[in-house]
Amino acid sequence: MYDRIKGFRDFYPEEMQSRRQVMDTVESAARRHGFREIGTPALESAEMYADKSGEEILEELYAFEDKGGRQVALTPELTPTVARMVVARQQELSKPIKWMSTRPFWRYEQVQQGRFREFYQTNIDIFGSSEPTADAEILAVAATALTDLGLTGEDFDFRVSHRDILGGLLASFEGDIDTEAAIRAVDKRAKIDADEYADLLTDAGLTTAQIDDFDALLETGEDGLDELIEFAGTDRVESAVENLQAVLDATVDLGVREYCTLSLTTARGLDYYTGVVFECFDSTGEISRSVFGGGRYDDLIEGFGGQPTPAVGFAPGYATLSLLCQRAGVWPEESLSTDYYVLQVGDTRDVAARIAGQLRDRGHVVESDVSGRSFGAQLDYADSINAETVVIVGEQDLADGNVTLKDMESGDQIAVPVDSFPGGDDRPTYDDFA
Amino acid sequence: MYDRIKGFRDFYPEEMQSRRQVMDTVESAARRHGFREIGTPALESAEMYADKSGEEILEELYAFEDKGGRQVALTPELTPTVARMVVARQQELSKPIKWMSTRPFWRYEQVQQGRFREFYQTNIDIFGSSEPTADAEILAVAATALTDLGLTGEDFDFRVSHRDILGGLLASFEGDIDTEAAIRAVDKRAKIDADEYADLLTDAGLTTAQIDDFDALLETGEDGLDELIEFAGTDRVESAVENLQAVLDATVDLGVREYCTLSLTTARGLDYYTGVVFECFDSTGEISRSVFGGGRYDDLIEGFGGQPTPAVGFAPGYATLSLLCQRAGVWPEESLSTDYYVLQVGDTRDVAARIAGQLRDRGHVVESDVSGRSFGAQLDYADSINAETVVIVGEQDLADGNVTLKDMESGDQIAVPVDSFPGGDDRPTYDDFA
Repeated sequence: MYDRIKGFRDFYPEEMQSRRQVMDTVESAARRHGFREIGTPALESAEMYADKSGEEILEELYAFEDKGGRQVALTPELTPTVARMVVARQQELSKPIKWMSTRPFWRYEQVQQGRFREFYQTNIDIFGSSEPTADAEILAVAATALTDLGLTGEDFDFRVSHRDILGGLLASFEGDIDTEAAIRAVDKRAKIDADEYADLLTDAGLTTAQIDDFDALLETGEDGLDELIEFAGTDRVESAVENLQAVLDATVDLGVREYCTLSLTTARGLDYYTGVVFECFDSTGEISRSVFGGGRYDDLIEGFGGQPTPAVGFAPGYATLSLLCQRAGVWPEESLSTDYYVLQVGDTRDVAARIAGQLRDRGHVVESDVSGRSFGAQLDYADSINAETVVIVGEQDLADGNVTLKDMESGDQIAVPVDSFPGGDDRPTYDDFA
Repeated sequence: MYDRIKGFRDFYPEEMQSRRQVMDTVESAARRHGFREIGTPALESAEMYADKSGEEILEELYAFEDKGGRQVALTPELTPTVARMVVARQQELSKPIKWMSTRPFWRYEQVQQGRFREFYQTNIDIFGSSEPTADAEILAVAATALTDLGLTGEDFDFRVSHRDILGGLLASFEGDIDTEAAIRAVDKRAKIDADEYADLLTDAGLTTAQIDDFDALLETGEDGLDELIEFAGTDRVESAVENLQAVLDATVDLGVREYCTLSLTTARGLDYYTGVVFECFDSTGEISRSVFGGGRYDDLIEGFGGQPTPAVGFAPGYATLSLLCQRAGVWPEESLSTDYYVLQVGDTRDVAARIAGQLRDRGHVVESDVSGRSFGAQLDYADSINAETVVIVGEQDLADGNVTLKDMESGDQIAVPVDSFPGGDDRPTYDDFA
């Protein structure tokens, strides 16, 4: 007997059905907004990640040398891959490019609740628009996906921030400050203690007084954005604030403003963000980690050798999203569903097969015996797969020109002329004949 | 600019949409027959493949040592994984177990037409039934998938064979014959020349006379099955022949007998098959390779440390299946489809967003401007995504209480009161108002 690899999961049908339903709901929200599915490889050149994040990133990846001597890595995220794909066809692709895909990614990380070494995400991105409407559309798709799952504004909150406000404020301080390091410190703020946080900012070049100022600025609410402009006194912070306000305004038209809260302490860990960033949190705080996040990354495509192409996107992961859905009581029930079981008694295969085939042609999930089982064993099996209706096709019934329909919930059954079943009803059940 | 890895593919939206449609069609055929989706890991312990097929198999896989010192491999096929999953829960799972999944697999192979290093398959298997009906159901799901794709009996042919007929015939020869090697030779027969084929059988222990006899037996048609029993004179061949006939009989009830042809020269390459095997071929012969195949493998679960559990399944791969669909002219058109483009003229974002939202709530694919574009640029974009209907929301029209519907095929347009759009129609277009 073999074990599966640590951090990798098997999904049996009941759980998979719920996951598929949740993934379909998220994908449907994106599809209806005009995002188009793409298909992407599981392996990329390791260089692509090392160039972007340094050689040390390879320690966190499933990176290896293939039989042809290529240094490759299992994709830890989709963004570099889509950037590569955009660059490869930048002339032909009509803008905006709106792409989405659902697939697994892999990282060699510590396994913990809601974090696995193989994890699934739906990536949803817009390339080619720098307009606030594009950022707002990303927030709208995210909110639509969550409300379609049955979540409400009581369940989740998008904490919205802006990288260039953070960067602009840091740049307005005197001294030699490592902006990226300071932003990474902000991203870690909620997860580490105050001393550790202060140490990180000190390492990034801030004085104690600056740390206090910066921290106070991060607490700014929606009414206080003008004070940030005033404090920094730079065009950079002014236009970043205006951009953030324009995005929030655009979410009003799209009906999703209620889900967004300004939160400058939200920074996102990845270096490539340039504008609005956001993270989705559990409003009750029961799940303390960010559920997922996204934001604007206008420089990445150019960094991949392409023409300057603004971009904004997000990527819900299903490990944390399932925790949120479970906490809120909207995770789909993990049980099989079956429309019909066609039960054979005696040698009635031909009629049973005809009926099963006609029901399947109408799109129903239909099982029939493939194991040569008795009446009782077939009925038990029909029950185990939660068949709604059992169509009993028996030799004696057939001699009288009938089949029997059994409603599995009530146990009621009724004889129906075999010639009129399934008949004209799209979904004939006991009730149609009772 | 980075290159993708050899043998790996990027799928852009147009091609992906066609692939998704084909995959959905195959999955739907399986779902309607009661096959349940499972989710499986991309990495497994390399030992699982080496134990089954010998250390040399690892040369054909993406096998490597992970950061934790585990010998792992990217899964080259699903069968060992599902066997592991069946064994892990063999007590709880109610039989028959009917599973399916669509996902990529990876092999370090020579890249050629219809063969890539990353390739997609839908695996469809039944565990726990040794009945001929189960084999026939597998053939029925395969045929349903293909006919649902628009293929007919003129397009494809299931060449049906039986491992135990081949094995039983070989066992009936005098001498020390390596049955597995001889069956592998049969599998290669069509791909190699006659001398090479004879050499392989000689290596497997057959004399020249036996090779001639064996070859003549392989040409047996459906009428000649009794002669095989007579030739071998063993219970083994007799019951194998009876089993094959029972499977073919069962396909009659399921309405798929017409797609099946007896072909003992079909052997399937993998050692683990034990009973009926089949391969799907292009009837026109234009595509010479097997499109996909499957069969019965009753001993595998026990080989994985489980209780004896009969099994039968198949796995269409999309590289070859797409070649067949293209040859037959049924590959779905590779173009985007969009139900509505909601075009904004002036600051009409709120009304445009309301209309777009209501159309999306009805399930439609709806795009609207996220780039601050002019009327003409928006119309060009709507055309580029093949929008069927454009809803023009203009400031002046709105002042008159109207929006304009434009049919993109005819170019016709009509003013519609904004209060009655989208109105009660599920899918309102120009024609509903003209």
